[in-house]
Amino acid sequence: MSKGKVYIVGAGPGDPGLLTMRGAALLAGADTVLYDRLVDSEVLKLVPLGARKIYVGKVAGSGDNQGKINEKMASEAKKGRVVVRLKGGDPFLFGRGGEEAEFLRRRRVAYEIVPGVSSSLAGAAYAGVPLTHRDYSSSVLIVTGRDAPSKRKGIADWKSAAKAAETVVIMMGAGNIAETAKRLIEGGMRADTPVAIIQWATTRRQKVRTSYLGVLADAKRGLTVEPPSVIIIGAVASLAKKLDWFKVDGMTTLQETSGSKKARN
Amino acid sequence: MSKGKVYIVGAGPGDPGLLTMRGAALLAGADTVLYDRLVDSEVLKLVPLGARKIYVGKVAGSGDNQGKINEKMASEAKKGRVVVRLKGGDPFLFGRGGEEAEFLRRRRVAYEIVPGVSSSLAGAAYAGVPLTHRDYSSSVLIVTGRDAPSKRKGIADWKSAAKAAETVVIMMGAGNIAETAKRLIEGGMRADTPVAIIQWATTRRQKVRTSYLGVLADAKRGLTVEPPSVIIIGAVASLAKKLDWFKVDGMTTLQETSGSKKARN
Repeated sequence: MSKGKVYIVGAGPGDPGLLTMRGAALLAGADTVLYDRLVDSEVLKLVPLGARKIYVGKVAGSGDNQGKINEKMASEAKKGRVVVRLKGGDPFLFGRGGEEAEFLRRRRVAYEIVPGVSSSLAGAAYAGVPLTHRDYSSSVLIVTGRDAPSKRKGIADWKSAAKAAETVVIMMGAGNIAETAKRLIEGGMRADTPVAIIQWATTRRQKVRTSYLGVLADAKRGLTVEPPSVIIIGAVASLAKKLDWFKVDGMTTLQETSGSKKARN
Repeated sequence: MSKGKVYIVGAGPGDPGLLTMRGAALLAGADTVLYDRLVDSEVLKLVPLGARKIYVGKVAGSGDNQGKINEKMASEAKKGRVVVRLKGGDPFLFGRGGEEAEFLRRRRVAYEIVPGVSSSLAGAAYAGVPLTHRDYSSSVLIVTGRDAPSKRKGIADWKSAAKAAETVVIMMGAGNIAETAKRLIEGGMRADTPVAIIQWATTRRQKVRTSYLGVLADAKRGLTVEPPSVIIIGAVASLAKKLDWFKVDGMTTLQETSGSKKARN
């Protein structure tokens, strides 16, 4: 094993206060930090002045740079440096942390995984949507709207998903949400299943909208979903209107959506 | 709204370093802290000396005391106090935070939800099991092995669950895991699906065992699962043997399980 070490750290969902204490301590002691696009600038202020801060987020049109990130992590650690690989949310939930750990293991570079608050959970918390609730839901399916082309199986089995989980959370699903919603309805979910859409979760830009699955499925109704958004589908989403608490500049972030009433039909 | 306020805070999975910075700051400024059974004593040291620390974890045989917790939170806040309701893991994922928020809203007590690192995610991280992985899984079902008697629908639809999610995480499922595993196999999951069992996740008592779904389903094979355990089922669980990194007293926490080989049949 090399002298240096890589800490694969979840930076949390956006609000810098949701970084873990261990994550903060590791950043303060880092020689090199490789960070992603959605990491808050307040979090990066924890990095010492003399340390290398390397932005490795995707640049539009540049394709997949995971190979370069892997090589950089390993080469920095091989120089005996303390490397923090800082990722949005949690590194093992849609964070490609598994691939990075596999690479480091192959190269005999020591590493640790520091979990973080996933935006799936934090978005729910900041929108007032309990993912589970004794009266409504004891199962949560977290799924991505985008699938890796390399994956052996195809996109999620939405038909089973519609039956398996009382709460469905879709991450990175803004682009094809109408199609996804349609499949869930085909799978047996009711068109009047409540939906909460949380954009820019936990940040000062947070916006929460509530609607119904049938509205999402109908692209003509004009409910566009922009990234980055967490989409929560299930009876619990109706609680957003009641339990909503997060305020930006004194205002809660819940917005009335047009089309919600029509969706009940 | 009352002058006081209740902060429903996720304390994280066990390792006190996995508390969020916001959670730590709130504890340091609390007048009253109501805390659960699995909250680490190091976390409680953040509470100021003069503050009230009230243990509200379940005492064996005492039944459900949620009503008393609700009343205590509200009455402390109505006295103008800053109340931290400290819960293991994340308050909105099997944490009954939703019920507590509903109660506070009814009583017109101001509250905030501070998400935490769920033991479902942290257990995976500390066992070296990526819940998602481009090659194996892009969907995670998080489900409890125990269901609330008050819930309208019955226990999870394991048959659909077996098809819907490539990774299934079972929380609080130690008691009836053989039955659950049997249902998943009936639903179409292969008996040779890898399984990782993480007991006392992220703590110095952590133990990780790997096995196969067929072994879990067969109570006679003697693979007993003790609480508190996170059980991860899916191809990704096989990565525990490769990516395992967490050490207690210099030793990794992965243990060889008897019966694993037999399970492949």
